Amino acid sequence: MFEAAELGRKVSKHEFDEREPDLHAGLLNVQRRLREADFPVVIIVSGVEGAGKGGVVSVIHKWMDARGIETHAFWDETDEERMRPRFWRFWRALPPKGSIAVLFGSWYTQPIIDRALKNIKTDKFDRQLERIRHFEDMLVDDGALIIKLWFHLSKKEQAKRLEADAKGKKGGKISPLTKSFSKRYDEFALVSERALRKTDVAHSPWHIVESGNARYRNLKVGQILLERITARLEQPAPSSGRVTVPSPALQKMGEPGVLDGVPLDSQYNEKTYRKLLDRYSDKLYKLAWEAHNRRINTVAVFEGWDAAGKGGAIRRVTGAMDARLYRVISVAAPTDEEKAHHYLWRFWRHLPRAGYNTLYDRSWYGRVLVERVEGFAREIEWQRAYNEINSFEEQLVEHGMVVLKFWLHISAEEQLRRFKEREQVEVKQYKITDEDWRNRARREDYERAVSDMVVKTSTEIAPWTLVPGNDKRYARIEVMKTFCERLEAALG
Amino acid sequence: MFEAAELGRKVSKHEFDEREPDLHAGLLNVQRRLREADFPVVIIVSGVEGAGKGGVVSVIHKWMDARGIETHAFWDETDEERMRPRFWRFWRALPPKGSIAVLFGSWYTQPIIDRALKNIKTDKFDRQLERIRHFEDMLVDDGALIIKLWFHLSKKEQAKRLEADAKGKKGGKISPLTKSFSKRYDEFALVSERALRKTDVAHSPWHIVESGNARYRNLKVGQILLERITARLEQPAPSSGRVTVPSPALQKMGEPGVLDGVPLDSQYNEKTYRKLLDRYSDKLYKLAWEAHNRRINTVAVFEGWDAAGKGGAIRRVTGAMDARLYRVISVAAPTDEEKAHHYLWRFWRHLPRAGYNTLYDRSWYGRVLVERVEGFAREIEWQRAYNEINSFEEQLVEHGMVVLKFWLHISAEEQLRRFKEREQVEVKQYKITDEDWRNRARREDYERAVSDMVVKTSTEIAPWTLVPGNDKRYARIEVMKTFCERLEAALG
Repeated sequence: MFEAAELGRKVSKHEFDEREPDLHAGLLNVQRRLREADFPVVIIVSGVEGAGKGGVVSVIHKWMDARGIETHAFWDETDEERMRPRFWRFWRALPPKGSIAVLFGSWYTQPIIDRALKNIKTDKFDRQLERIRHFEDMLVDDGALIIKLWFHLSKKEQAKRLEADAKGKKGGKISPLTKSFSKRYDEFALVSERALRKTDVAHSPWHIVESGNARYRNLKVGQILLERITARLEQPAPSSGRVTVPSPALQKMGEPGVLDGVPLDSQYNEKTYRKLLDRYSDKLYKLAWEAHNRRINTVAVFEGWDAAGKGGAIRRVTGAMDARLYRVISVAAPTDEEKAHHYLWRFWRHLPRAGYNTLYDRSWYGRVLVERVEGFAREIEWQRAYNEINSFEEQLVEHGMVVLKFWLHISAEEQLRRFKEREQVEVKQYKITDEDWRNRARREDYERAVSDMVVKTSTEIAPWTLVPGNDKRYARIEVMKTFCERLEAALG
Repeated sequence: MFEAAELGRKVSKHEFDEREPDLHAGLLNVQRRLREADFPVVIIVSGVEGAGKGGVVSVIHKWMDARGIETHAFWDETDEERMRPRFWRFWRALPPKGSIAVLFGSWYTQPIIDRALKNIKTDKFDRQLERIRHFEDMLVDDGALIIKLWFHLSKKEQAKRLEADAKGKKGGKISPLTKSFSKRYDEFALVSERALRKTDVAHSPWHIVESGNARYRNLKVGQILLERITARLEQPAPSSGRVTVPSPALQKMGEPGVLDGVPLDSQYNEKTYRKLLDRYSDKLYKLAWEAHNRRINTVAVFEGWDAAGKGGAIRRVTGAMDARLYRVISVAAPTDEEKAHHYLWRFWRHLPRAGYNTLYDRSWYGRVLVERVEGFAREIEWQRAYNEINSFEEQLVEHGMVVLKFWLHISAEEQLRRFKEREQVEVKQYKITDEDWRNRARREDYERAVSDMVVKTSTEIAPWTLVPGNDKRYARIEVMKTFCERLEAALG
């Protein structure tokens, strides 16, 4: 989920200075329009220690008119607060229609800390998240716009930041609490990821902001606020039902994102490849039998660009397993019967029983890839799908399945080269120019869809593996290796 | 929650025969229209043992065309089913667009049994309910109409029914399981009540059907199906957001309901009243101090007809307590500032801290009473409010508060008599004729609103007490007594 926020993105001082004035003017403008509107805005500022949440709050205040914006910081509960139900303090902080509240710390803070420090169990944590979702739903039903910001730093980046702070002028300011939290980076990451996943819904999504560079972070925040408030101002509340604010501009605002981080030039020579393939094939053969005996089954999803080598990778995996232990499902267009049901129905329908491996050549992710990009699903539909898919996979994992998800990534150039190669090799000629141009035109849309997909569905329980695919040998080994590692982990 | 389903309602054979043909024709007609529609219908048949769920399924089939309706009974899980996540069996049973599935037993069955038999804890039970809600939301988002029927029998009625069955022709058919479940009537009632409360949402509400009389039960089911499917056919899916089917006809279909069961002729003579008032006053004085010392606080809501004696009842309670320990809040129209927030905001705002008693003369229930009847809240808003209020009160109770809710009930005649009395007594004359006529005209609407309110918000943790108020003395003692009993129970 945090993959797209560890790419080391930066904004230069020059660029920042160039873009800031427009952003500032834009924010003042939406704030003026908001004053007449019949809904409030709640901005939640949360994220890892050291990500500069205080700086974010300052810059929001710098950009906005002080009339009509208020910040509430939630420290330890006061006596007054402890004497009332937990949400009392948050109700007190809710802004009236037409104004903005910035919540520095929020209803997420305590549950995440409690869970990361193991003061509460998962069931209780989940109940608290459910209450949060209920609470947010209620506010959104009533018209509120909730903008949820999560500021992220990688583990390395956080360590660096805290160290620098300790040495620098903020020396005295690092609290023992911050230190103790930063020591538990991994626990916090897992728990936060769960909190975000379970509360990331179409009508109040999370925005994960990479925070290694303050200028980048602040610009991003400004853009998110501008886009979301503008979109909400332009969409009046319908007479019934919940307002889901589409934010097409927001989709475009970002960078292609997570795919940028894939080291496409990774490769193996033939000799290394052969050696590794043999090693992992032997291993996988044994692991697959052991998994079968222990009734653990595997669901492996293969997605990727056309010609990225999905078929080849799948064949290497199945080649290493006893033929009785796997099934490959190629997902094509849905049948009429399937179309008459919820889009997940056909995947539930063919769900494997325990003890087997099912490899999907394309999958339920079609909903947020091809159906999104080609417009087969409406925005409200594919937006909902992230959460629906996470819940689906959660049920698989709870049932003891191992869920593997591979995105086979190749560059646009490599893809073109492979198309051309096929054109020469295959008897039936590809209409390569048409296809090629079509793909190139759509590539950017698909990259955005892939990036959103990974951010929203790469979870602690079912992470995505982004496979560098320009070198087919490297890609296949990467898939085999991941398969073995995940199975080994599941077998304990 | 089940109060309105224990009123002993019956339909005569004559009435049944008169009404059945229209219902039958109507159902065939909506079914024909449904065939062309782009949504499926899921009918959930659930409820207590002995309520005749099998009979309901039969009658539905009798009334409907066999093409396009299918029943799925969920018994013990098969091997095939156990090898997959729990919801697999339900996904398999989902109907395609244009058709109907009747689920005899459903995703509610196992969690309720598991919890009633204490095989799982509350946290786990709640997580399962959350998953159910998520699942139903997903189907509704996709267009499905879910009709959830709960067939209810009182404890006495159930015992009678099972005994009759045992003696009668069905002698051999009562399973040991049924017998063992019926022995745990109270546990099942509590657990079911929780399940219904947590999954009763505006877009897929529960219908609780009194089942003591088979003809009444079957007619009711027919009417519910007819109304809900018709309403859904007439409201096409909006381009975004969830479809909430308003069912005004359904509101009118029923009987005034739960208030019919209040024994309005209960009374005390002056001597008995004095004696009881002294006794409970002494008791309450002590209990209030003990509660204060143990930091338990009480939230008591007083609602009722105009002139039903709310003020008098409140004064008797406060008269029995140390003045430092209570506060009376009269809820009038909201201020401008309050109007600019969610309607619950003003109640959160004034939430008492621990160790005190707060008595509300009218309350948050205004949302589903006056605001509903007078049209100050839109249907979608007051429909949502039941669930929001339940969640609000749940948070109070979890924080250790005791929530008491009184509806002071008087007959229309008694109300008129009191108005006239006041007219004679008070200097400033009431415009009694206007008021009177207005009240009489609205009485039926209010009765319906009260009945819905009690059904949907009388919960295990915060039950309504319906107080017979034609005799003021009786009403006051009833309030005092309930206050003492609930406080005693809370103090253990």
